[in-house]
Amino acid sequence: MMKYNFYQPTKVLFGAGRFHELGECLKTMNLGKKAAIVISNGKSARENGTLEQTKEQLAKSGIENAVFDKVEANPTASTIMEGADFVKKNQCEFIVALGGGSVMDAAKMIAIMATNPGDVWDYAFGGHGGNKNYFEKPMPVVAITTTAGTGSEVDAWGVVNNEKYDEKIGIGGADASHPVLAIVDPELMKTVPSEFTAYQGFDALFHSTECYITSPANCMSDMFALTAIENIGRYLARAVKNGNDLEAREHVAFANTLSGHVMELSACSSEHSMEHAMSAMHPDLPHGAGLIMISLEYYTWFINRHVCDERFIRMAKALGREDAAKPMDFVEALLELQKACKVDELKMSDYGIKPEEFPEMARKAKDTMGGLYAADRTELSVEETIGIYQRSFR
Amino acid sequence: MMKYNFYQPTKVLFGAGRFHELGECLKTMNLGKKAAIVISNGKSARENGTLEQTKEQLAKSGIENAVFDKVEANPTASTIMEGADFVKKNQCEFIVALGGGSVMDAAKMIAIMATNPGDVWDYAFGGHGGNKNYFEKPMPVVAITTTAGTGSEVDAWGVVNNEKYDEKIGIGGADASHPVLAIVDPELMKTVPSEFTAYQGFDALFHSTECYITSPANCMSDMFALTAIENIGRYLARAVKNGNDLEAREHVAFANTLSGHVMELSACSSEHSMEHAMSAMHPDLPHGAGLIMISLEYYTWFINRHVCDERFIRMAKALGREDAAKPMDFVEALLELQKACKVDELKMSDYGIKPEEFPEMARKAKDTMGGLYAADRTELSVEETIGIYQRSFR
Repeated sequence: MMKYNFYQPTKVLFGAGRFHELGECLKTMNLGKKAAIVISNGKSARENGTLEQTKEQLAKSGIENAVFDKVEANPTASTIMEGADFVKKNQCEFIVALGGGSVMDAAKMIAIMATNPGDVWDYAFGGHGGNKNYFEKPMPVVAITTTAGTGSEVDAWGVVNNEKYDEKIGIGGADASHPVLAIVDPELMKTVPSEFTAYQGFDALFHSTECYITSPANCMSDMFALTAIENIGRYLARAVKNGNDLEAREHVAFANTLSGHVMELSACSSEHSMEHAMSAMHPDLPHGAGLIMISLEYYTWFINRHVCDERFIRMAKALGREDAAKPMDFVEALLELQKACKVDELKMSDYGIKPEEFPEMARKAKDTMGGLYAADRTELSVEETIGIYQRSFR
Repeated sequence: MMKYNFYQPTKVLFGAGRFHELGECLKTMNLGKKAAIVISNGKSARENGTLEQTKEQLAKSGIENAVFDKVEANPTASTIMEGADFVKKNQCEFIVALGGGSVMDAAKMIAIMATNPGDVWDYAFGGHGGNKNYFEKPMPVVAITTTAGTGSEVDAWGVVNNEKYDEKIGIGGADASHPVLAIVDPELMKTVPSEFTAYQGFDALFHSTECYITSPANCMSDMFALTAIENIGRYLARAVKNGNDLEAREHVAFANTLSGHVMELSACSSEHSMEHAMSAMHPDLPHGAGLIMISLEYYTWFINRHVCDERFIRMAKALGREDAAKPMDFVEALLELQKACKVDELKMSDYGIKPEEFPEMARKAKDTMGGLYAADRTELSVEETIGIYQRSFR
């Protein structure tokens, strides 16, 4: 489709070592005198020194800080509200998110709730959400991504888990919810453990593959998506194998940020709805791992319906199968990449998922994130969603 | 190079028919109650109805207008100052540029001078420019491009001709100089005459080819540049042959906007400095035509110095030579495209250029736009610049 809206207002500094430009860059941006640094509830930002370095960079620009360190792997609505409260009490003027997708997503939601009334779920569309738009401009967010997976550093969304309803919904999307600055420094990603490098890399890959096969795909999103798929295809297995392989980290980080842009240009598909329902009900399941578990059966379902044969062939080529000739070559290339990344044997049962949950899971997928189902080129029903879960189960 | 800055804050509405969304879009943007509509000093915007339609779209959003219709083909410093005066006298709050590169460039410069003191040449770097930065935020600019050539709808620059010194310099570049909104509607380009479609298309092509071979080129600019080159290679000759071929117009317009983004991500080369010196001294020479005249000898010079053999081969492939194996295949593909677009026999002498001017022209090229020479992978001296002019002369 030769029609698109392009709006990517985040200033991106991409490249090894660029984390150290944070202070200088903030000096030119005048975001405020005090920042809330949002990190995860884990130990890594403290242990690997990046929290301390972030504080130093802020201090260099005369910016005070307060640290909010409670973001969990699948951030919850109550954490968002606690964070907003923290930001207000500490009189912070902007937020620095230092972490992976959960941290950046949480920071964007905290930024909304720091300036808007009510509860975060008021602004969720779908499920038990209040279906309201927010009107106050969110606080500015600076995103320093330490993983290559969600592309959250350049998009306007945050996925939040509402523990009260076991619902996981993407909130945000307004122009003003884009981070004002994103730092993508592959050096920061060297310490990500092998299996998470794989999970996150496949999340990035699926952002692009989904956005390439949904109906909003267009000439601009295609360019970003295919380039991302190529970079993942060539470099992800290397980054998984050796986390210190900076060249591989650079290319995977590049693919990930591209995939973030892609989501702003096109739309993800029901695959993401399906996974979010899985990890809403089983918060220990990493999002990327859930996607990998259902991916082969998911794409096969669409290929069997011939929704866009040529696009699957083109994606197979982008993944490295230069002689691809049929849509299923994409699924084969995907399986090959999963084997190379040692994630081809993930099991739902290892995370406590049981087949009797599938009907509820499928209803939840379509109910809470039905917007992505609407982007599919052909309708995937609740029954057929169950079928994909079942065939993916082991 | 796996390092880049990405900052593209212009909201782009791309696609056939999107011009008609102007009014609705402005409603959401709150840019002000009165706009200066900037058009060229020619007749087309009045004759083809787009001026009237622009006024209607503004009125739809309750926005008054005043029309400044004095922008010439290579906009002059005095016109910029006259425009700034016009905007202030008419108490306009933002500017709508409706036209090609000259109009959009002029509008961006008028926007700077509407809020900053002094003369526009105070803000030019190089030549007789004052080498000053502007500090006041320029007035917001909405760019409606009616041509596919300069990519000016998404970049932060305006090229201005100073008639006092026969100097042509790009001014601007600050973050706030990007248009806030760009409408790229290929329908508006159908009336561009065949030869100008070719000149403009080659300008767009050279933005990408230059940015691909200069040293600031990076993974992000490469993606934009190669995609632009592919689209020009496949569709420019069709658009030149039949202006009503909407599919061809769409792809050329897409390539052009991509090339605008490329210039923000990488840097053009001395080819652009060389041409700006030509059209500074001969303002009747269309910029794209000047570029075409020197292009074959220009690229051959760099190929002979082996600055980036693989990049030339990759560009030849992007232009359609899938079996390209040597750098000169690019020059052959370029000549072939020029033949297909009927611009392979342009003559400098037809525009009054004389060989005895080359030394002054070369000095001017390096003196007024030396920044682009600095982006080249190897140094092109003034003497060698003269040599390229001489070998290109006929």
